[in-house]
Order: sequence, then C-alpha cells, then structure tokens
Amino acid sequence: MAQKNTIRIAIDAMGGDFAPVNEIQGAISAFNSKSSDVDFEIIFVGKEDIINDAIAKLTPGNLKYTIFHTDDVVTMHDDPTAVIKKKKNSSLYKGIELLTNDNADAFLSAGNTGAVLSTATILLGRLKGVSRPTIGTFFPTEKNYPVFVLDVGGNVDCKPRFLYEFGVMGSIYISNMLGILNPKIGLLNVGEESSKGNEAALQAHELLSKSDLNFIGNIEGSDIFKVKADVAVCDGFTGNIILKFAESFVGLLKNRFRQFAKKNILNKIMIALFYPIFKKVLKDFDYQNYGGVPLLGVNGVVIIGHGKSSPLAIQNMIYKAIEQYQKDINKKIEKALNQNILQQN
Amino acid sequence: MAQKNTIRIAIDAMGGDFAPVNEIQGAISAFNSKSSDVDFEIIFVGKEDIINDAIAKLTPGNLKYTIFHTDDVVTMHDDPTAVIKKKKNSSLYKGIELLTNDNADAFLSAGNTGAVLSTATILLGRLKGVSRPTIGTFFPTEKNYPVFVLDVGGNVDCKPRFLYEFGVMGSIYISNMLGILNPKIGLLNVGEESSKGNEAALQAHELLSKSDLNFIGNIEGSDIFKVKADVAVCDGFTGNIILKFAESFVGLLKNRFRQFAKKNILNKIMIALFYPIFKKVLKDFDYQNYGGVPLLGVNGVVIIGHGKSSPLAIQNMIYKAIEQYQKDINKKIEKALNQNILQQN
Repeated sequence: MAQKNTIRIAIDAMGGDFAPVNEIQGAISAFNSKSSDVDFEIIFVGKEDIINDAIAKLTPGNLKYTIFHTDDVVTMHDDPTAVIKKKKNSSLYKGIELLTNDNADAFLSAGNTGAVLSTATILLGRLKGVSRPTIGTFFPTEKNYPVFVLDVGGNVDCKPRFLYEFGVMGSIYISNMLGILNPKIGLLNVGEESSKGNEAALQAHELLSKSDLNFIGNIEGSDIFKVKADVAVCDGFTGNIILKFAESFVGLLKNRFRQFAKKNILNKIMIALFYPIFKKVLKDFDYQNYGGVPLLGVNGVVIIGHGKSSPLAIQNMIYKAIEQYQKDINKKIEKALNQNILQQN
Repeated sequence: MAQKNTIRIAIDAMGGDFAPVNEIQGAISAFNSKSSDVDFEIIFVGKEDIINDAIAKLTPGNLKYTIFHTDDVVTMHDDPTAVIKKKKNSSLYKGIELLTNDNADAFLSAGNTGAVLSTATILLGRLKGVSRPTIGTFFPTEKNYPVFVLDVGGNVDCKPRFLYEFGVMGSIYISNMLGILNPKIGLLNVGEESSKGNEAALQAHELLSKSDLNFIGNIEGSDIFKVKADVAVCDGFTGNIILKFAESFVGLLKNRFRQFAKKNILNKIMIALFYPIFKKVLKDFDYQNYGGVPLLGVNGVVIIGHGKSSPLAIQNMIYKAIEQYQKDINKKIEKALNQNILQQN
C-alpha cells in the first residue's frame, strides 16, 4: 500500500458504458495532468484480464495502479437493492468495501447509480446526523458557474428533516468545492411565499429558516437557471424529473433545428453555419462530460459518473474525489449537522 | 340575453397585465376571425368606465357585448383563498358567478390563477367524481403537437386517486380538443418500472393500470419532449416546478447567445443572423402567446390565461372556451369518472 499522503482511489473498472477503457484512460490523463503536489494511486476494481488487456492498448506511463480482481459485474439493469446480497463479488461492491477497511480513500463509478447509492449506504453507513445520503448534481445556468441541485438521487419521499439536511450538505459541499462563501440555499417550491408548497416543503421551510444556513427561502422552477440560489434543495422525485427534463432540452433543440434545416437549402446552410456556435454555447448541457457528482452523507468519499462518462469526465471525477478527501468534507458535514441538532433542541 | 345557440362568454376584463385592452382587442379579433356557424357574445366584467374608455379607442365593429360592472379587482398579489370572502364584488368573482346562475356559458381570465382556481371550485362546485379540479397545460415537444401536462394547478399534495382522475380528465380533454384518439396517458415518475416512485405515484400506477385509459405506464422527465405519452400526469408540485423551469429555457438560451455575441464582432453578426431562426424555431416556447389552459373538474367552462396574454392569446382562449362548451367535455368527464368508479368497485 502507498504512503499516507498518497491518496488511494478505487475505480469501478466495470461500471460505465465504455468501461474499462474510459476509466483507465481517464486515470492516465488525471495522472499526466495533475499538479506536482498531488499524489495518488489507482486501484482498478474488476476483471483482471479485461483490465490488463485494456491497459496494454493504452499508455499508462508512470501511473501508479494496482488491479483488484472481481468476477462479477453490476449492470444498469440490476436491481440496486439486490447488489448487497447477490453481487458481493462485483467490482461495485468490492470497490466500496475497500473504503470500509481503509484500503482506499475514495471510490468512483460510472455504473448503476442506484446500486452505488444503496450499496455504499449499507457498507459505509451514514455520517452521524444524516438521515438519508443524497446525490447532488450541477445544473448549467445563465452565470458562469452552476447551481447545485439535491436530492437527485432517489429519495423520492422526503421528510422535512431530510430536506434540511440536504441544505446543510449542499452548503458545505459548494462552499468547499466551488469556494462560494456562505452559499445561498433555496428550497425548490411552487411559489416564493413561505405559505406555499406541499407538506414536506412547508415544514422544511421552517427548519431551514431556523438553521444557520444562508437560507434565502423558496425558489421556483424559473429561478434555477438564474442562480437565485447556489444550492437548490428538493425531494428526489422532483429532482430526478427536472434533471432528466433538463438533459432532454438539447435534444429538443437539435430536433427543431433539424426540422427547420429540412425545409430548404438556405435553411440547411444557416443551421450548418450556426451549429458549432450552438454546441459551444450549450457545451455544459452535455452531462456525459461532467466530472461526476458526489454521493453525500455516507461515511466515505464516493463519486458517481454518468454511464457515458468520457475519459475527461473520469479524470475530473478523480480530481473531485481527491479534493473532497483532502478538504475532509464529510467531517465538516458531520460537524455542521450535529451542531445544528444541538441548537435546535 | 342572447338566444340559446349564442354562446355567452364572460371575460374578466380586469385580469391580465394588459387588461382590459388585450381582453377587448382579443374579443374583437375573435369575432372578426370566427367562422360563420359560431355565434357568441361577450360579457366584459369589470369597471364600466375603464372598459368603455378602452372600447372607444378600439374598433369593436359588430362584436356583440355587454358590460357587467364590478367595483373591485383581484390582483396578482391577492391571496387566492381570500377572494371568496373579501372580494365578492371583483370582476373575477362576479364573472364566475355569472356561470352559476346561467347568465354565461364560459368564463375566462388572465388574472390571478390561484384565485380563479379556488373561487371557481367553491362557486361552481366540482363535477361528480372529481376530487380536485386541475389545471393542465401544453408543453412544446419534438413533434408538431404538444403534450398535455396536468396537474400544474397547485394540487401540491396528491392522493393516488387524484392522479388517476387527472389521467381521466386529461384523456377526455385531449381526445376531444386535439382529436387524438385514445390518447396515451403516462405517469411522470423517476423510472419506467412500476416499482419506481414516491408513495402517491406507486399507488396511482396501480389505479391507472386497472382503468380503461390507454395507460402506457411511467414516463420520465426526458420523455416529455419526446411525446412518449400524449398526457403526462403528475402532482401539482412537480408540474408547477417543471412548467416554470421549461418557461425559463428560452431565457437561458437568449442569455447564452448574448454572452457569446459580446465576445467579438463576428460572433455578434452570427448571432444577429441566427436570432430570427432561433425565435421561429422556439416560437411555441413563448407561453404568453398560448391560448390559455383549461381548469378541469369544476362544473363550468373556465379558461385561464397567462398574465401577459396577448390579444391573440385571448382570441384563442375564446375559441377554446366555445369548443369545450360545444363538445360538452364536462359531461364526458363526469360520465367517465363515474363509469370507472362502478367498474372499480
């Protein structure tokens, strides 16, 4: 094992749609682009022969890595909650297990999101004060920085307390990772007034108002892109639907442009001219290039990537994992949640 | 009063941001553009002097109209539930009241949506079998017809039964108004599998599956633009948030183009060239031009418009009101819901 200041990153080498190639290439790129004061080693978790074959075709250079062999693979179709019982020898399970016995400092996967969430929650346990681990994600905005929306990770029925905790976790994550001092926390709702919302939102508004957070109150669907808040808190039902809805927006635009181009040759030329601009301007809507999103609230650093994660996305996931580990964000979350509990009682 | 085959449409002449001018101009346009087999008269409800002043500046021609004077006005800031007690002499209240005593056949307003919803629900009552009146709205799509999403009208906490009823109301409205035979009904959810969703969605999935509707199962946020279903059913919390989120897409794009144009003169020219295409291609994202949306489930024909409704939007609202009245959609909803109740018991 590496020395203490070398960060050990376990990668689910069987996870994404292009695994293990993109995972390995991403790790190599991360190593080649890293700053000199960062030191890490990779533990590729998965089928040894497949991983070795892939590495042989790439140029690992001086990348420090080991392979942790596992026979089984969790697919996108596996029931997330069944992994813990039925796929104990999968790369996903074993990779997370490496964290529990201090054989790795962070785990990342572009595999089955639900399976990572539920397996990590059970194997790693929750941070003290956390009711439900949560996945947050970044939405592009009108500004030159994104909004962090959480939960998008499947907490479909949320108690008010969960929403409050999402606010705390989001606040700490964003202030540390994006350097936004005292980030503005908004509760995604159907109106600005505190009297608006469903039962959970009404009570969450109260909890958030009483907290130490920089809570700016309710925000509406139209406020996300405008960055009225740096962190938008919502239940995972709403969060999942708006995330997938937002992801489909670029597809709608492409479709409309295609239809327009079909009408005549002039239209076709105009669209051809404009297309590169359109792609450039909406680059950050391409979620598969995103550098993964954190699973917050579990006792370990876990980063989840899009199934179609590119090598660049994997590289960014590695950097985010290192940063989250170095900044000890989990300890900060635990501290904040338990301070707040004391204050509220 | 007009003869029986003349449809009497009460318009809240104090409702929208540009009231009463757009309301009156919209009515005039509707009259001038109507087909010869349609006959209607307008009852402008509101302050008589203001309405008369506005009419004097326009060209009403042969438009048949009367003015029903009211002193009070419901503003966008009024508490929707307070209108019924505190603003009984408002154009909104009196206009709806005209329906209750058969002095009008339909009511439309571009005013305070929540106030129309709650006042109409109390004054008109619900159709038999309807638990909660609902507002549905049209989303633009990749196809050349829209998707009908409901509820977007503030039923923030929905029992499974409500969601089922939204499905029935949406199905009947769409099949009659858009001529889609046996429209596909989808339940907006976090995954396709019937095991996915929050408590309400899980149980609604069961109810919808057992119904006579053409229920295609769960649809996801990414399926809306793709028109996987003709009608997307959701609670009003989710519906409101995605509606406002969708409305803000065009603003985001404009903002991005503006930023791009600022960089240099070539960019500026490219954007200037492309802008008309962009506007054309996304024309149907301009919700203020929409012809209003129906309040379904109340015992009367009520159409609600955007606060910024243009005269064209008002004109379309009038036509929609006439069509909904002539097609007796409310009776069809009542019939469907009560048949289904029998079948389920």
